[in-house]
Amino acid sequence: MIVTFGTVALDTTRTPFKTVENILGGTATFNGIASSFFYKTGLIAVVGNDFPESYRKILQERMDLTGLTITSGKTFSFDSKFDFDLSKRTALKTEENVIKNFEPKVPEEYKKADFVYLGNNNPKQNTKILEQFDNPKITLCDTIEYWIQTARDDVIKMISSVKGIVLNDDEVKTLFKTPNLIKCARKILDLGPEFIVVKKGEHGSIFFSDDMIFPAPAYPLEDIVDPTGAGDSFAGGFFGHLARKGKIDNKILKEAVAYGNVMGSFAVEDFGINKFLLITKDDIEKRYKNYREFSTF
Amino acid sequence: MIVTFGTVALDTTRTPFKTVENILGGTATFNGIASSFFYKTGLIAVVGNDFPESYRKILQERMDLTGLTITSGKTFSFDSKFDFDLSKRTALKTEENVIKNFEPKVPEEYKKADFVYLGNNNPKQNTKILEQFDNPKITLCDTIEYWIQTARDDVIKMISSVKGIVLNDDEVKTLFKTPNLIKCARKILDLGPEFIVVKKGEHGSIFFSDDMIFPAPAYPLEDIVDPTGAGDSFAGGFFGHLARKGKIDNKILKEAVAYGNVMGSFAVEDFGINKFLLITKDDIEKRYKNYREFSTF
Repeated sequence: MIVTFGTVALDTTRTPFKTVENILGGTATFNGIASSFFYKTGLIAVVGNDFPESYRKILQERMDLTGLTITSGKTFSFDSKFDFDLSKRTALKTEENVIKNFEPKVPEEYKKADFVYLGNNNPKQNTKILEQFDNPKITLCDTIEYWIQTARDDVIKMISSVKGIVLNDDEVKTLFKTPNLIKCARKILDLGPEFIVVKKGEHGSIFFSDDMIFPAPAYPLEDIVDPTGAGDSFAGGFFGHLARKGKIDNKILKEAVAYGNVMGSFAVEDFGINKFLLITKDDIEKRYKNYREFSTF
Repeated sequence: MIVTFGTVALDTTRTPFKTVENILGGTATFNGIASSFFYKTGLIAVVGNDFPESYRKILQERMDLTGLTITSGKTFSFDSKFDFDLSKRTALKTEENVIKNFEPKVPEEYKKADFVYLGNNNPKQNTKILEQFDNPKITLCDTIEYWIQTARDDVIKMISSVKGIVLNDDEVKTLFKTPNLIKCARKILDLGPEFIVVKKGEHGSIFFSDDMIFPAPAYPLEDIVDPTGAGDSFAGGFFGHLARKGKIDNKILKEAVAYGNVMGSFAVEDFGINKFLLITKDDIEKRYKNYREFSTF
């Protein structure tokens, strides 16, 4: 099982073309739905009692919800705005609500999970929850600028305790105050992880390990509707493929990066998770095949 | 023969680490030296009588200089500064000097050239010089923000008269006021060219034609010294491979994009053209092979 620990949110997203309010979002939502196409996925998250039943059903149809806590209060909500070319997002309002005092626990039936994904939560919380698992084969974490700026030591400690890390290019540059990605990647690997995947948004991603660099372009899209969740969906596709393969080697890791780019490309084609509600495993394999064909020379 | 028409310059380049003054630069210099590794290349350009003999020798050892005019006056010079991570360049001083009143002529022996590269010169001048060639098989042009802002109609006319175009992503977005590259590419193709290559600096490039999209990541480098000339060198490698193949098909075009990325990666590893003075055709093929291997999955 893959267990994803992160937020389930109500997002308000404003693009130059359209605004949508209180749609289903959050890092664990995108990540878990994306990985669920590949492998059984369980969710650890909290929502308030205002969380719409229709959203809970969407999650339930795709994931095991034993680890989902519903508590009194309001669900975490995030209101943000994209600029004209969808390249820059400005946060307008973040309401932590029920997340604030959430003390996540790993359900008994999740403890034997082989694959654990730690979203961009408080790094201290990520490190703590990781200790509750028996002996996961692959652990993967993410983080954000905010934690790097306010809790760098905790971020470093978290990174030291996982097998792989998935980060945005800006974040990795901030973490080490170094503009060169290869130099940053080396520093990450020195901390302990076996690999790092740097996400570059519309420019794709680069995978680094001790013996491999794999730069992979983004899947080219003509119509991008809402970039929200692209990175978490990337991580979901990447992790999902590793999980279904059950092992790691350079070939599988490259394929996983490609699946990550494919899942990221689906995510941005509609608001929130809408696109994922319309696609099948076949659509994913088709796009993957297409991606591989045009990448090959 | 490939004929490249563009500037030969004396560059002063300031990076956070080092400043170099009056080094050999210019679009035709980078482009022509890069393509000369692949195919016989001739130069159409002008320099002043201050142009160092040692620089002329560097050009002469690599290119046919029948089209190089040496005139009284000072050579075109460009002084610019890069920011801390080498991603942004600020022009400090541009002295047109002998370029200002240069009326380029195609030498008799160049008129039968099969391959013509038009650097980011005045688009009117590019269109005019193109008419002096007999019947080139492949014509390729570049342009810059300045011409798009001040002579858009001339840019459009130039684009309509060539087979291919190589442009930076910012430029192509400005040209059509559209942030989506695929949409921009379609508009370029509608103007007449058979293909467009969008250069994205450290993020590589994307090739577009009616029946192919090929996004190609940049060759990952740990030490970037001076980004000057990367784009022109890309175009030189791209065009050089097309020329030595003597024809265009999708496979060759993809290979050409890869060679473009390889030549761009060499260009940035030292100041100005210095790296090109140290490498051999073998080094290029080795890096190409390496690039292809890590891109394949």
